Amino acid sequence: MTPTLGIGLIGYAFMGAAHSQAWRTAPHFFDLPLRPDLAVLAGRDRTRLTAAADRLGWRETETDWRRLLERDDVDLVDVCTPGNTHAEIAIAALEAGKHVLCEKPLANSVAEAEAMAEAAAKAAARGVRSMVGFTYRRVPAIGLARQLVAEGRLGEIRHVRAQYLQDWIADPAAPMSWRLEKEKAGSGALGDIGAHIVDLTQYITGQSLTGVSAMLETFVTERPLPASAGSLSGVGGEGTGTVSVDDAAVFLGRFTGGALGTFEATRFALGRKNAIRIEVNGSAGSLSFDFEDMNVLQFFDGSEPAREAGFRRIVVTEPEHPYVAAWWPAGHGLGYEHGFTHQVVDLVTAIGEGTDPAPSFADGLQVQRVLDAVERSAAANSAFTEI
Amino acid sequence: MTPTLGIGLIGYAFMGAAHSQAWRTAPHFFDLPLRPDLAVLAGRDRTRLTAAADRLGWRETETDWRRLLERDDVDLVDVCTPGNTHAEIAIAALEAGKHVLCEKPLANSVAEAEAMAEAAAKAAARGVRSMVGFTYRRVPAIGLARQLVAEGRLGEIRHVRAQYLQDWIADPAAPMSWRLEKEKAGSGALGDIGAHIVDLTQYITGQSLTGVSAMLETFVTERPLPASAGSLSGVGGEGTGTVSVDDAAVFLGRFTGGALGTFEATRFALGRKNAIRIEVNGSAGSLSFDFEDMNVLQFFDGSEPAREAGFRRIVVTEPEHPYVAAWWPAGHGLGYEHGFTHQVVDLVTAIGEGTDPAPSFADGLQVQRVLDAVERSAAANSAFTEI
Amino acid sequence: MTPTLGIGLIGYAFMGAAHSQAWRTAPHFFDLPLRPDLAVLAGRDRTRLTAAADRLGWRETETDWRRLLERDDVDLVDVCTPGNTHAEIAIAALEAGKHVLCEKPLANSVAEAEAMAEAAAKAAARGVRSMVGFTYRRVPAIGLARQLVAEGRLGEIRHVRAQYLQDWIADPAAPMSWRLEKEKAGSGALGDIGAHIVDLTQYITGQSLTGVSAMLETFVTERPLPASAGSLSGVGGEGTGTVSVDDAAVFLGRFTGGALGTFEATRFALGRKNAIRIEVNGSAGSLSFDFEDMNVLQFFDGSEPAREAGFRRIVVTEPEHPYVAAWWPAGHGLGYEHGFTHQVVDLVTAIGEGTDPAPSFADGLQVQRVLDAVERSAAANSAFTEI
Amino acid sequence: MTPTLGIGLIGYAFMGAAHSQAWRTAPHFFDLPLRPDLAVLAGRDRTRLTAAADRLGWRETETDWRRLLERDDVDLVDVCTPGNTHAEIAIAALEAGKHVLCEKPLANSVAEAEAMAEAAAKAAARGVRSMVGFTYRRVPAIGLARQLVAEGRLGEIRHVRAQYLQDWIADPAAPMSWRLEKEKAGSGALGDIGAHIVDLTQYITGQSLTGVSAMLETFVTERPLPASAGSLSGVGGEGTGTVSVDDAAVFLGRFTGGALGTFEATRFALGRKNAIRIEVNGSAGSLSFDFEDMNVLQFFDGSEPAREAGFRRIVVTEPEHPYVAAWWPAGHGLGYEHGFTHQVVDLVTAIGEGTDPAPSFADGLQVQRVLDAVERSAAANSAFTEI
Repeated sequence: MTPTLGIGLIGYAFMGAAHSQAWRTAPHFFDLPLRPDLAVLAGRDRTRLTAAADRLGWRETETDWRRLLERDDVDLVDVCTPGNTHAEIAIAALEAGKHVLCEKPLANSVAEAEAMAEAAAKAAARGVRSMVGFTYRRVPAIGLARQLVAEGRLGEIRHVRAQYLQDWIADPAAPMSWRLEKEKAGSGALGDIGAHIVDLTQYITGQSLTGVSAMLETFVTERPLPASAGSLSGVGGEGTGTVSVDDAAVFLGRFTGGALGTFEATRFALGRKNAIRIEVNGSAGSLSFDFEDMNVLQFFDGSEPAREAGFRRIVVTEPEHPYVAAWWPAGHGLGYEHGFTHQVVDLVTAIGEGTDPAPSFADGLQVQRVLDAVERSAAANSAFTEI
Repeated sequence: MTPTLGIGLIGYAFMGAAHSQAWRTAPHFFDLPLRPDLAVLAGRDRTRLTAAADRLGWRETETDWRRLLERDDVDLVDVCTPGNTHAEIAIAALEAGKHVLCEKPLANSVAEAEAMAEAAAKAAARGVRSMVGFTYRRVPAIGLARQLVAEGRLGEIRHVRAQYLQDWIADPAAPMSWRLEKEKAGSGALGDIGAHIVDLTQYITGQSLTGVSAMLETFVTERPLPASAGSLSGVGGEGTGTVSVDDAAVFLGRFTGGALGTFEATRFALGRKNAIRIEVNGSAGSLSFDFEDMNVLQFFDGSEPAREAGFRRIVVTEPEHPYVAAWWPAGHGLGYEHGFTHQVVDLVTAIGEGTDPAPSFADGLQVQRVLDAVERSAAANSAFTEI
Repeated sequence: MTPTLGIGLIGYAFMGAAHSQAWRTAPHFFDLPLRPDLAVLAGRDRTRLTAAADRLGWRETETDWRRLLERDDVDLVDVCTPGNTHAEIAIAALEAGKHVLCEKPLANSVAEAEAMAEAAAKAAARGVRSMVGFTYRRVPAIGLARQLVAEGRLGEIRHVRAQYLQDWIADPAAPMSWRLEKEKAGSGALGDIGAHIVDLTQYITGQSLTGVSAMLETFVTERPLPASAGSLSGVGGEGTGTVSVDDAAVFLGRFTGGALGTFEATRFALGRKNAIRIEVNGSAGSLSFDFEDMNVLQFFDGSEPAREAGFRRIVVTEPEHPYVAAWWPAGHGLGYEHGFTHQVVDLVTAIGEGTDPAPSFADGLQVQRVLDAVERSAAANSAFTEI
Repeated sequence: MTPTLGIGLIGYAFMGAAHSQAWRTAPHFFDLPLRPDLAVLAGRDRTRLTAAADRLGWRETETDWRRLLERDDVDLVDVCTPGNTHAEIAIAALEAGKHVLCEKPLANSVAEAEAMAEAAAKAAARGVRSMVGFTYRRVPAIGLARQLVAEGRLGEIRHVRAQYLQDWIADPAAPMSWRLEKEKAGSGALGDIGAHIVDLTQYITGQSLTGVSAMLETFVTERPLPASAGSLSGVGGEGTGTVSVDDAAVFLGRFTGGALGTFEATRFALGRKNAIRIEVNGSAGSLSFDFEDMNVLQFFDGSEPAREAGFRRIVVTEPEHPYVAAWWPAGHGLGYEHGFTHQVVDLVTAIGEGTDPAPSFADGLQVQRVLDAVERSAAANSAFTEI
């Protein structure tokens, strides 16, 4: 009989729903050493919390997340709250001996992330595991990209170009949300989506950014308050709120291996809904990925004769591809939420095997340092800023 | 409190797994009038059945499907068995007052399908519902395609071209399976995948095929028996088996509205894993879909001025698109199995509302008649054969 | 000093302009054994002919094409007239000892084409060369496709699917033209564009069609006469004319090697301007081509491991590709008319070397037989009709 | 009778061949006020010059370009030499009263470009015209892009991203060439191809870059000398030469209207042969272009309802599109060299009409200032540098 792993999830919005589906689904497709038990959902608003627990499939609820740390049926705390609360919750959970899965970005500041990484290191020494939720690593095409680079199929990496393009606030009439408040979100497009492409490019290349030159921009600084403004700190009624984060972040970077990077994260790319586009050019091959066609990886193998060389459109749905064998026959593509299921699989496997899962809080800290360097460079006339 | 709908599922292979995930997932994303209860999984091999029930999340098991008809905790029988068993099971279930969801093709012959449609009609008079599993109708891009045609955006339909391309037996060394035996599968590519594009094109256009001119081909007639040949009727040990179905079916067709259709279903299109490609050209607009990029519908609006007209790549992930609002923000694509979840949603909704769901067994019978006409035309020197 | 090859061109519309550009351009990029001399342009309307000769760069003009056969400065007659005149002109020219380049389709009937092929064979015995203008063979991507098949990279061919999609008369208000009159054009989409995909698929595969099953359709049977109706035989003034050719032709076919073919030629595919789409699936590889992206060939190499296999987007602009080395650096794509220049290169080279160029009139006759079989099958209830 | 315009072309390599084809072809497709006369080709090596004149179709030759300025049959000097000679030749030609077409980049330094722009302004006062060869402006899809922006279809521009990706020296074994020597080429990827995307993005948006933050990189600093090293200044025999220019240039920029720009020019993007990729996101619409599919412009119209909005793949081959009506029917795409023909058309038209053509030398100077700012920023730790 597979032992259970009691899960306590904090937050039930977009990320909470995605994580719930993952915890629920993983054991039906993958062999896990521990069977996740959707034990407790935590949130502040009792009414909405109860409805969410029913909808998302959680057995019990708590309106104070601290209660999770005291419960014996909770072995792992899954943090799906805004970034300004990550440090407090995650550190407390680790100290209470609970494994932690924390959504990205790890924190809203380097200082917080450092404290979290430190807490994670201490906890790891006690066998308590932690992971930060850079879910897109678990898209099979991304996993394949990493494999190809690691196997040397791209040779020496020359160029990395990465864009995360959305358009959900391109309309100036789009209302305020906590994601547009610096106090809660830490930053705007930079931390919300820029963090993903920083992590992904480092993950795929196996290299780190060593410095950046950056610009940030807020195109629309005042926005209407949402119909129900309750979610905005200290703001209510009609009128407008001030956007205190970046709408877009663009930056150049250097990787440890000498590659040049160009990065762009924006919520103003009209017509692009969730386009994570990554290209890597090496001395022996190239890769191209676009999340709008998420089951595909384009690969150029420079060893092919010129007459027949070309970017191969690899449909990443073969049993040979990461995670895929557990799902459907070839050609039956996966969707967005499968990445979360794979994340759960990797995390539970690591816990079961007593190893430290990746990406670790230290990895999350490193991304945080990149984001911080971006902000410092932007504030310093775009001067190259080391990480 | 939402009342439950007890489900009895027969079969636990590819389709059984897909249906299980759908029954499990639907209530967590959609508001259903009845809450599916994964009550009983049925299959013949006790050992594998037990393992499957555990893996797929079913509470109990039965090794004789007839037992499902006697159980009070089963309100709906979900038939995921080979086609030669559909008629017997579905008719018995309907007569026992159980709602039925039956995988496609509805049957292995027109006669069987007629009996099933008759049974379904009788059952419907008693409030017992039935549906055939043409799941691809529930891909949001397909739903959008149908809407656009129904709204007249394409004008008069001129051309329909449809291909269902796979390659899983393109290698002559690929082993035998029940899908290559006429007795069990009824036909080969024709019924397995050709049925889908017949249904899809009729669904999208709102028209029916009136006749066809066809060719069938079996490229590889002898194949090695699988390592474990237990699944093959009366055949065991080493050696080869005879492929008794078509490897590929190609046919021309006429639609009720006068459009010309070209159809191709094959398992020998090397490099195409599950490419359902449908194009419709009308007097006012055109559509193009490829399941390899399943979250996209291409739409050409003929009313645009020539200077700026072009096929629009609609990323079908907006809340305005069929089924999508229940899932993720725009741009976060769905995968193959979501169609099964949507199927469950539509079926449970119809049962809850006391209406007959579509596609009905009568729709399945009509597709069966098209498949039959294809076989008759192929046998008659490709002469045009009315349906 | 390179000797000259005097050219006499008959016709100065679309094809005449394309051929003129080719004769003019070829020697500036390719090493030719003979230097084309744009000697005489022939046409019936003196005023328009004179203007055309000036615009297209021809030294002299003739209003009676027979005069070309008598002129010493004409070594080659280039026939760019409607199909109903091909046989008379080409045969006379060959008998007069002039090399002939004849636009496709070779003729409007099998009988005419037979007479032409016979004349060509006789002329060849005297060193007089002839070629039919299946220009698309000279698109570099098509040449590469043929190479790959010939080298066995596709293995045994299983499927050929070909579409030639246009939309220039999808609008019922589009006016009459000679291309819609059976007497002049022979057939409609079938001969005009269907002939191309018949030739291309046979050329690429190195196989011939052995029989077809077909449907023809005329969606719009009455059309307004053009503003100036002078070009329509015996029709003038206002009113409508009757379309006496097919708007669309769809057919299935068998190739000598056993492959199944599906073909579609239509002028009613709204939004597709000149989409020649060809796919070939073999036991070892697959190809895909679309003239809307004419500098690209997609190639699936079945020998690649599944993990990294995929259709390669070969940008066919490398010096290793057919014809390309004479033009620009890699990545600087060619356009539509380059095929005509390549046609001139191949023809002049063959004349210079004293060999018979391809495609020959016999090749043109074979295509004509396919077109004829399509018409006969369509008239015989789509029954399979041998070629 | 159309008067002639005598052309003197200096240089007969890649650009010389492209310009020759353009001068030769333009009058056969377009109505020009002056008929270009391919009078004189100039170059230093008499043997190669003579062969080139014969191949490219020039009537006479000169081994000293200064002779062109004295010849009465030369009305226009077309400068296709390396960048370090542009200023001297162009200024002398303008002062001699010859119109000048000068390849890009205008010069190798801002100082040179300033002198050229000054000379051009003085010459213009005397009716002598000048143009710099940013040929890609004449790709029809680019022309359409500019139209859509100018008409307000994109609204306020938020983002510009542009890449010019090649790979012809990605291999460290690729030999030296004058394009890798700073003295002759001025810069590397920056001036050679970066100049194009600077010009194109400014042209399409109708805005100018106001400042940049940049990095330059030379990945391979020593390369083998070419087999025949004669073309390299003062270097001969075997061994290696030092690459003194950038292999890649990446930079961020600000446009006058507030948009953010990201730019990348590289010769190390393995698998990309000549990929000019430009995207523009505005508040009302977006555009996307890739020269690898040069007859296509992708346009997202933000005014479409969400249900049916999507990037439209406009095949830019309609008579309504810039330059296209003079060529072929819809769908018959153009190639790389057509841009040069369009350039000739615009230039000759302006000369005939007595107006100043664009892009002017002043436009070329402005691009030069951007390139200079890129180099200064790269030298100043990527600090934002005003233009």
